Amino acid sequence: MAKRNTSPVSGTRDFLPLEVLRRRYVVDIIESVYQSYGFEPLETPAMERLETLLGKYGEEGDQLIFRILKRGEKLDRELRDRPAENDLADSGLRYDLTVPLARVAAQYQMELPRIFKRYQVQPVFRADRPAKGRFREFFQCDLDVVGSSSLLVEAELLGAASEVLERLGFAGGRDYRIRLNHRAVLRALMEAAGLGVEREETALVAVDKLDKIGRAGVEQELIERGLPRETVARLVDWLENRPSGNPETISWLRERVESFEHGRRGIEELGEVLRYVGGGAAESCVDLDPFLARGLSYYTGPIFEINFEGFSGSAGGGGRYDDLIGLFSGRQVPASGISLGLERILLILDERGLFPERLTGQPQVLATLFAPETIAPTLQLAHRLRESGLRVDVYPEPGKYGKQFKYADQRHIRFAVLLSPREIAQDVVTVKDLTSGEQVELATEKAAGWLLERL
Amino acid sequence: MAKRNTSPVSGTRDFLPLEVLRRRYVVDIIESVYQSYGFEPLETPAMERLETLLGKYGEEGDQLIFRILKRGEKLDRELRDRPAENDLADSGLRYDLTVPLARVAAQYQMELPRIFKRYQVQPVFRADRPAKGRFREFFQCDLDVVGSSSLLVEAELLGAASEVLERLGFAGGRDYRIRLNHRAVLRALMEAAGLGVEREETALVAVDKLDKIGRAGVEQELIERGLPRETVARLVDWLENRPSGNPETISWLRERVESFEHGRRGIEELGEVLRYVGGGAAESCVDLDPFLARGLSYYTGPIFEINFEGFSGSAGGGGRYDDLIGLFSGRQVPASGISLGLERILLILDERGLFPERLTGQPQVLATLFAPETIAPTLQLAHRLRESGLRVDVYPEPGKYGKQFKYADQRHIRFAVLLSPREIAQDVVTVKDLTSGEQVELATEKAAGWLLERL
Repeated sequence: MAKRNTSPVSGTRDFLPLEVLRRRYVVDIIESVYQSYGFEPLETPAMERLETLLGKYGEEGDQLIFRILKRGEKLDRELRDRPAENDLADSGLRYDLTVPLARVAAQYQMELPRIFKRYQVQPVFRADRPAKGRFREFFQCDLDVVGSSSLLVEAELLGAASEVLERLGFAGGRDYRIRLNHRAVLRALMEAAGLGVEREETALVAVDKLDKIGRAGVEQELIERGLPRETVARLVDWLENRPSGNPETISWLRERVESFEHGRRGIEELGEVLRYVGGGAAESCVDLDPFLARGLSYYTGPIFEINFEGFSGSAGGGGRYDDLIGLFSGRQVPASGISLGLERILLILDERGLFPERLTGQPQVLATLFAPETIAPTLQLAHRLRESGLRVDVYPEPGKYGKQFKYADQRHIRFAVLLSPREIAQDVVTVKDLTSGEQVELATEKAAGWLLERL
Repeated sequence: MAKRNTSPVSGTRDFLPLEVLRRRYVVDIIESVYQSYGFEPLETPAMERLETLLGKYGEEGDQLIFRILKRGEKLDRELRDRPAENDLADSGLRYDLTVPLARVAAQYQMELPRIFKRYQVQPVFRADRPAKGRFREFFQCDLDVVGSSSLLVEAELLGAASEVLERLGFAGGRDYRIRLNHRAVLRALMEAAGLGVEREETALVAVDKLDKIGRAGVEQELIERGLPRETVARLVDWLENRPSGNPETISWLRERVESFEHGRRGIEELGEVLRYVGGGAAESCVDLDPFLARGLSYYTGPIFEINFEGFSGSAGGGGRYDDLIGLFSGRQVPASGISLGLERILLILDERGLFPERLTGQPQVLATLFAPETIAPTLQLAHRLRESGLRVDVYPEPGKYGKQFKYADQRHIRFAVLLSPREIAQDVVTVKDLTSGEQVELATEKAAGWLLERL
């Protein structure tokens, strides 16, 4: 038997038990908080029609979609001509959870409540070049409200995201911040600086590098990209001299963009979101950032991004997208959502040592096996302990206790129960605490209670 | 905006919230029982190398694998020549959870405990023709032990599967049975009937139809398939006259196959499994069935299948497969597993009305919205109720209570809280039980306690 290549496909990962339990610990908190905010779960298929996926993520996105090869006669027919990439596939793997939501909102309009509050935690697939922290299959944890244009929605989204992070042990305003902006405010600000819509993206990509390349670097890049010197000077000046503090930022914005109708509306909406956030879980961590862009394509209103102190990149984000659902439903439906970056959050939890020491789901007790003739009574003992709610592993082969204890240790099991013919005859069990070495003999009926008290 | 085709891809399903919560209810029980038996979770990627998948599921299986199209230059290169199906793909979607387990067991030999007890609940993908109850993406719930040839393993697998079904409200021996057989016993029995290994599968496919086409039908089919009349007569006679009861079946088998060395060993192993099952959760529902076949390819020892009274087809099954892991690891590693048929179990639970009336995860309280100026205090009230552990939805738009109550009803929310400026001024809330119509005014600080008592 020759050994084969048994590593997972490039860019994907196997999650061994401890890793699964850690991921579950986080996902359980995410889901239970999302539920406490009145959201319900949705699940959609891994595969979507290619026409559903294409054209939603920009040209680069289209290239990153994993396509599923046609089969049988359909494939044979294509192969007879000179097929192009899209002729060979009829479906693809989902690229995010927002497009599937838009499809679902259109498909089940009559069954869903008028305001549809859903969360979705499922893997998405992108044929990106694998790199540190960048995977081809990774989980998204999305929270969206479809069907309401009330800005209360944004406050609830930010509250839920903060509540998750607090429950995981992070402190809002210290460990992480949520930056808040508004698409219309950003547009007005760019206009006030003298930038047309067609140059906006170029400019913001450069602006985003301030931390990395400094003022001079940003200026140089903006000029190289062909922006007028006057515009560049104004932008960089704003960027460096904008105030901190939300009320101060509102005033600063008023001075610059209140003459634009959409700018005025955007500022009012930002004020409203900030008011609603007060008194909730996100109260202390939402900071206005007039330069936050979040890509530029489908957002139409408030946008937000979660950043951790000391970590570049975002740990989540989202915004209002009032036009996307309409692409599928044929009528405009307002929507807004936020997504938590699970992989990033796991990384930070690990670095800060914030995972609980014992994770729910791990076995608690090992029933050791003395000899072939004790198999049946050992299994009955295990059954009895399980009925009391204990998670009990049974060592499947009789043999030296040392070997069995080593196995328990490897699986992080704290207690071992020992059952030899003598113990069976006397209706007792020996329980050993593998961390302290302490060993006690107990009446069989008392064993479960004794263990439960100590776990 | 034109409406597009928004149905899910053929053979796949969208799970709306109630359906997700029902599925979770079952999966949570499955996982918590599996954990109580000392198993830990594994998760593997949706995509596997094509070479990992091909040749494991027979010729028909190979055709049912969803292949992922190559991309970029690799694809261009293939398209220049006359490519065949397998040239165009480098990976495929997982077809089951057993082959990924075998790959993982080989890849992480040094990290995993010598005896690896894992469960895995993930979707698998098959390009089958969609039909009622047959899907292209469906969940498997697998439980396996890798690394031990002890038959205690089989007893634990059967115990865990039974425990799951009991917790779901089914009674072993009445609602469902687990049929048990052994590959070696089956082989010996076929030999005793005069059937060579090459005809075994053909014969068993016909035998399996006894319930549907009757004795005469089975006889006719066996003869049409070219089996000697004498063999057919013996098989059909055995099929019809075999005894019921496990001890009787063991004796009956002894008479027929004890002269074959592997038959003798198989009977002994079956007796051992039955002995170990005694006193556990599967005690009353395991029945020997000497004709149970479970396909014929990779099983090497005991095999089992779960059947529900009044439902054709199986609700789960499995067996020992001591050679599969070796295909990947290059050395023989014993293994045995069972898989529960989630889709089938959900169907039966639904037909029997066994789902709980209220599922965990649904919102419990709707905070209604009186007017724009009550948004902030309403959100603060919701925050307060959530901190007490309640699942609280907030209606995002002020408007008539009737409309808001209707929304609550649609979402199966039992309680509404009302907060008008008068109530805010007096620091009280009105709570309405939407099922009874009962309405009470409570001090704000008392509301959570009052609600928790009634939920």
